[in-house]
Amino acid sequence: MAKNLVQNITPRDKNFADWYTDVVREAKLCDYSNVKGCLNYLPNGYAIWENIKNDLDKRFKDTGVENVYLPVLIPESLLATEAEHIEGFAPEVAWVTMGGNEELEERMCIRPTSETLFCDYWRKAVRSYRDLPFVWNQWNTVLRWEKTTRPFLRSREFLWQEGHTLHATYEEAEERTIQMFKVYYDFLTESLAIPLVAGKKTDWERFAGAQDTYTCEAMMHDGRALQSATSHFFGSGFPDSFGIKYLDKENNLHSCYETSWGLSTRSIGAIIMVHGDDKGLVLPPKIAPTKVMIIPIAMHKEGVLDKANELKDKFNELGIKCKVDDTDKTPGYKFAQQEILGIPFRVEIGPRDIENGEFILVRRDNDEKITLKFDEIEKVFDIIEKMQKDMYDKADKFLHDHLFETEDYEELKKITKENIGFVKVPLCNDEECEDYIKYDTGGFSSRCIDSEHKVKKTTKCIRCGRPATDYVYFGKSY
Amino acid sequence: MAKNLVQNITPRDKNFADWYTDVVREAKLCDYSNVKGCLNYLPNGYAIWENIKNDLDKRFKDTGVENVYLPVLIPESLLATEAEHIEGFAPEVAWVTMGGNEELEERMCIRPTSETLFCDYWRKAVRSYRDLPFVWNQWNTVLRWEKTTRPFLRSREFLWQEGHTLHATYEEAEERTIQMFKVYYDFLTESLAIPLVAGKKTDWERFAGAQDTYTCEAMMHDGRALQSATSHFFGSGFPDSFGIKYLDKENNLHSCYETSWGLSTRSIGAIIMVHGDDKGLVLPPKIAPTKVMIIPIAMHKEGVLDKANELKDKFNELGIKCKVDDTDKTPGYKFAQQEILGIPFRVEIGPRDIENGEFILVRRDNDEKITLKFDEIEKVFDIIEKMQKDMYDKADKFLHDHLFETEDYEELKKITKENIGFVKVPLCNDEECEDYIKYDTGGFSSRCIDSEHKVKKTTKCIRCGRPATDYVYFGKSY
Repeated sequence: MAKNLVQNITPRDKNFADWYTDVVREAKLCDYSNVKGCLNYLPNGYAIWENIKNDLDKRFKDTGVENVYLPVLIPESLLATEAEHIEGFAPEVAWVTMGGNEELEERMCIRPTSETLFCDYWRKAVRSYRDLPFVWNQWNTVLRWEKTTRPFLRSREFLWQEGHTLHATYEEAEERTIQMFKVYYDFLTESLAIPLVAGKKTDWERFAGAQDTYTCEAMMHDGRALQSATSHFFGSGFPDSFGIKYLDKENNLHSCYETSWGLSTRSIGAIIMVHGDDKGLVLPPKIAPTKVMIIPIAMHKEGVLDKANELKDKFNELGIKCKVDDTDKTPGYKFAQQEILGIPFRVEIGPRDIENGEFILVRRDNDEKITLKFDEIEKVFDIIEKMQKDMYDKADKFLHDHLFETEDYEELKKITKENIGFVKVPLCNDEECEDYIKYDTGGFSSRCIDSEHKVKKTTKCIRCGRPATDYVYFGKSY
Repeated sequence: MAKNLVQNITPRDKNFADWYTDVVREAKLCDYSNVKGCLNYLPNGYAIWENIKNDLDKRFKDTGVENVYLPVLIPESLLATEAEHIEGFAPEVAWVTMGGNEELEERMCIRPTSETLFCDYWRKAVRSYRDLPFVWNQWNTVLRWEKTTRPFLRSREFLWQEGHTLHATYEEAEERTIQMFKVYYDFLTESLAIPLVAGKKTDWERFAGAQDTYTCEAMMHDGRALQSATSHFFGSGFPDSFGIKYLDKENNLHSCYETSWGLSTRSIGAIIMVHGDDKGLVLPPKIAPTKVMIIPIAMHKEGVLDKANELKDKFNELGIKCKVDDTDKTPGYKFAQQEILGIPFRVEIGPRDIENGEFILVRRDNDEKITLKFDEIEKVFDIIEKMQKDMYDKADKFLHDHLFETEDYEELKKITKENIGFVKVPLCNDEECEDYIKYDTGGFSSRCIDSEHKVKKTTKCIRCGRPATDYVYFGKSY
């Protein structure tokens, strides 16, 4: 029975795409709904999203962010206020044309993103410098009429947060863009144990209407990139389109500067594809809804279940979320199930352990067995920290083992042909060179600029030989 | 300037409806958006909703509820599966007819409620008794094409939670219905300090498709009723419509039993209309986002602001959310603003207080001033409890002062003409009698049955004189 469970999961290195959908299904994270292109987020998946929300929301609020909620609908004329924006989104929105039995005078779309709604509010709310800044965020659902669906990675409807801020000065807005980019960086590396390649997008990969886009790019176990969070600086373009101006201290009318930044349920896909293994999901302890699953051995022997429950209460009192699996399945089946679900720790406890005053803690990521006395339970805090760090280090080693670098075009072709991963090359700031590389390497697109590695005067674009402006990471993306 | 602030609020007893909208506007809780019928939930309002969510969600989870997220769209054929349900909702939903540039083959509505989506999932997921029960909830947004809008009370889009559960037996489902009704009762009375008249709805006021509806009815300061939470028992009607059956232990196919239960952002309206006064909002301490606002007196004198900040840190360390108003406005203006926002406590602290090693705490609900030494700050916990209880008691007195009871029709007419509030009367179980009373009293509709007050064999329906089945509360409703 235990074997059967694992047999439902395709080995990861045999077929990564199948492995992914198998893990999502067997861990009951989400499910295709009968509403085409939309997902049902089931308890196991949604609980991860709740933990992501709680963690990230606290980080936002520590920087002064306030949460709001703006409408789910956007009238067509409002979506059309900023030219690049409507061009980017109109082909992929769902249109409401009837309310009850009446045809609407103007059709409205379900928001694909809410820049236009925020600007619409601000043009009413902003009068003077005293009204600024606005540092707002909302946790909500958005809809984009995608043709294909992959659990967490691509679906018509997805859950996310979208932060929107408005400032009196260019500098303050730019600083906020970078500040939120750093919040994402810290969250992804610290809480999700996901190492990143991060930085500015090139001019051709920015968000529709943005002046700068900062991105956190994670490397999945198949070497592909998952854009895990982005932070956009709009300058004054967007607010100017909406006529948002403020009176400064000298009573002069002045432009406002805007940012927006978001992270979505895609990040659950990143957790799965960075940390998962052949046995299923592996959740970093900091984000796991249940940290410890106690599996009693010889459960029906006197005192075993009592001791298991006593131990569970102790874990929970310490704030370490713990459950006991007291169903009538075999321990082997329960082990397999706990492993599929990615619960970071399993406790094995049977009559002999109880006699010895101890229990066995098993780490999900490396199967390490740790024997602990009942009065040593607080040691688990250190073990949690250790596991979180080890998971990051392991993923970081994988990332660095698959980071390549070259200034020679033929070598670039060789690298992209023979390896999975990202490759960094010097590039001029020309869309044509990016497009050519993408086409010529079978899909390696520009992920972001390496801000720390500056080009020299003599550095040449790997494609065209003209002077390079930046070192840029390329990778195949989800 | 301080006077001006309050002058923006119509006195409560002069015009209750104007007072309500003034408070919502001046406390910046929410705002009419340019999307007709939809609201912008601003930071001050949304923060209250976040606290409601956190509190209630914990109560749900303590009873074993798991959170999920199901799609925002419902195909028309799915909405139509249960006859009474589609009849109730079809006239008031928003229809999506286009995706991108393509006309849809089947139109879909934005969910007005999600019973049909849950049943659609369950008909796929339920096979045997081992799969049951499902005890699920989601926090989301719903849309109903209303004609009129009143902040928090009525709008096309509103935020809520909708719990949906599926059980193997009638008894278990009925028990869950009542359990969640009690969770709401406890939450509303304990956390929002709102006293209730609560019980079963009569047969004519139930939710579309339900067999029983339990309701929590709160009395607003104008004597009108606000339905603040409902819990529905569907029996097996809904699941049967969807063909959801399970194999029991004896391998017989068996019906499932369903419940649903919800509480929405209307509850914010209830807080305002139960507790608010001429100076603005009054928030019960347990639900207030900011519990204490420190307003320094003679702020620019040396040491005042430092001491204010030191005190703020102490409050926050104790988990009592506290802010300092260090803007360049006058203390009088700041007092008025803190009062409008309904922040439960104000701290006044100036040079003389600091010299005496003390500060003054002012209760928002009754203006009581309490002088505390700096090392007595923990006394605030008791003061919070006291204020929460006093607010409940005050509202409870108001409720009981406006609860009437009669078995004589002429007296009922007199009571409803001369008083605001609810009136309890014996009633037969006939829709016509309910309708007649509503028409004849200018709008007193049946709110709920008093389950503790049983009719005698000789008790007669106040309207028709036939034997009464129940004592029923009537009131004008929002």
